[in-house]
Amino acid sequence: MVQIPNTPTSADVARLAGVSRATVSYVLNNTSAVRISEPTRRRVREAARELGYVPHAAARSLRAGHSRMVLMPAPAIPVGPLYSGFLNELQWGLGRLDYTVVQYGSVGLQGDEAARAWAELRPVAVLVPGAELGPQGVGVLKRSGARAVLTLGPERVDGAHALLMDHAAVGECAGAHLHARGRRRIGVVVPEESGLEAYSRPRLAGVRRALQGTDAVVTRLPLAYTEESAAQLAARWRESGLDAVFAYNDEYAMLLMRALQDAGVRIPDDVAVIGADDLMLGRLLRPRLSTVHIELPSGRDLAELVDRAVRDPGAEPEVHKVLGASVVQREST
Amino acid sequence: MVQIPNTPTSADVARLAGVSRATVSYVLNNTSAVRISEPTRRRVREAARELGYVPHAAARSLRAGHSRMVLMPAPAIPVGPLYSGFLNELQWGLGRLDYTVVQYGSVGLQGDEAARAWAELRPVAVLVPGAELGPQGVGVLKRSGARAVLTLGPERVDGAHALLMDHAAVGECAGAHLHARGRRRIGVVVPEESGLEAYSRPRLAGVRRALQGTDAVVTRLPLAYTEESAAQLAARWRESGLDAVFAYNDEYAMLLMRALQDAGVRIPDDVAVIGADDLMLGRLLRPRLSTVHIELPSGRDLAELVDRAVRDPGAEPEVHKVLGASVVQREST
Repeated sequence: MVQIPNTPTSADVARLAGVSRATVSYVLNNTSAVRISEPTRRRVREAARELGYVPHAAARSLRAGHSRMVLMPAPAIPVGPLYSGFLNELQWGLGRLDYTVVQYGSVGLQGDEAARAWAELRPVAVLVPGAELGPQGVGVLKRSGARAVLTLGPERVDGAHALLMDHAAVGECAGAHLHARGRRRIGVVVPEESGLEAYSRPRLAGVRRALQGTDAVVTRLPLAYTEESAAQLAARWRESGLDAVFAYNDEYAMLLMRALQDAGVRIPDDVAVIGADDLMLGRLLRPRLSTVHIELPSGRDLAELVDRAVRDPGAEPEVHKVLGASVVQREST
Repeated sequence: MVQIPNTPTSADVARLAGVSRATVSYVLNNTSAVRISEPTRRRVREAARELGYVPHAAARSLRAGHSRMVLMPAPAIPVGPLYSGFLNELQWGLGRLDYTVVQYGSVGLQGDEAARAWAELRPVAVLVPGAELGPQGVGVLKRSGARAVLTLGPERVDGAHALLMDHAAVGECAGAHLHARGRRRIGVVVPEESGLEAYSRPRLAGVRRALQGTDAVVTRLPLAYTEESAAQLAARWRESGLDAVFAYNDEYAMLLMRALQDAGVRIPDDVAVIGADDLMLGRLLRPRLSTVHIELPSGRDLAELVDRAVRDPGAEPEVHKVLGASVVQREST
């Protein structure tokens, strides 16, 4: 039989250290407003360690009125190495400022329903990637006590700080590059997988914008991430007359390049191919894949923005453009 | 100037609905033990909606003694599509059982220090992937009120339920396959990137185990995920005399295959190459990449195990082997 240990309380710590419960709370919450001698602090910390006492974040947040919890909805789609590195840096930056980052699994929840679920945890700040949150959701979060709501996405949301990630810039780069390479009949891959519209739509719009007023023609190419879908697209390629393609990202580019090569279409002679994300795999393909390198904001800067927003919850929402895009030309264009 | 709205409380809801605070609490927490008429329930829900009132998970957990929060440390390394699909399924399964899944960013925290940070959130259950948690950490979590601690990793941890993911089985599969294909001088890639030892060590041990007592020789091949490192390894290949390699996973296999091909080493004639994870990219390579397909536990089954463990915190820790491995042979071996 496994023993279920009793949960030690701050009263137990106070008894063992021979101090009041208030003193335990002051010491373990690092309150500097109250003067407590170093030997007493040490005694409290040793008693807490001995008993295995851990302060209760929820109780602390109820007392303080807010927590140090920064909540981020966990993305429902697989995140690539680029975004995952950015998340790590951000978590590290917030940790340094004494925030706790919590990623909330929002699978199955959408829009304001998701916002209500997040609000239940009473985060001090909420950082929402993508386009999941509307102004009502922002309101729910603020009324529940969130001092700052920040969105990372294509558009501003009323009431929230906006870190604008304009994926149209990625498409614009790609479109301008293909045009400069002399291509005029340009396909743009739009993944059929759900959850990617928030990125694929602005990327396509960006290509169109780059080629507006030129003699180039843009064609939308739906593609599922399967060999069958790519083979079907490749089989129709010659009749399409397309001489270039922006393949959404490097992974779709690898899939399509293989299908085109298997169908006897030469890259870049017949078709120029460009991806996005600048992943390692693009350098390993033959011909080497041209790509759009995407610059995400520094996690450290973003952590500081969160902290500033928490300290001044009444400030006007800030708007920052945080996505940089530039072409890395290799052999495929 | 942005207005900071006042946070509505359950007292506000009670006033608007013309009921007691206890009734508000019963209705919004879906307590079935207390009989409350449907019109009253409706009135309370409407008042809560009108005021934008959201119950406080922390307060609720303080009252109930525990939360419905299942905490998972967020992995510090990028997760591939395989693991990310598993996580989604698990979150969905736990959501269906009315748990809230929270992924905790543990970047910068290790071992028992991490356990203490997790304990502060007072989760009802903790699910720890990898090998981050020791028996002391389990104790900290249980004393703080976690009713179940489950580990997903290579070994059992005292006091915790164990979902054994034996990555040695992946190496064993790969080793046995290469031996059956007539190869005898077998290299095993060990990534130099930190955070991967928990997987690479058992995979290497599995290859050794599969080839024990045979005339095959196993060589450890450190490799960083860079073109330079792969080119260096490929340049020394002929003198190494290796006729096969288990490349850790499909991504390292793609990197190494490219370097070997660039160095004029023929695959599979000179060297048989096998990866692991069965990613799409392996099917797109030429020759097509053989791989070890990894079967993760069903997220739904795992969610039910979590629930069972929470309901019976005194039960003996369960131990389940949850990782399946099988070879998918293609052209590279």
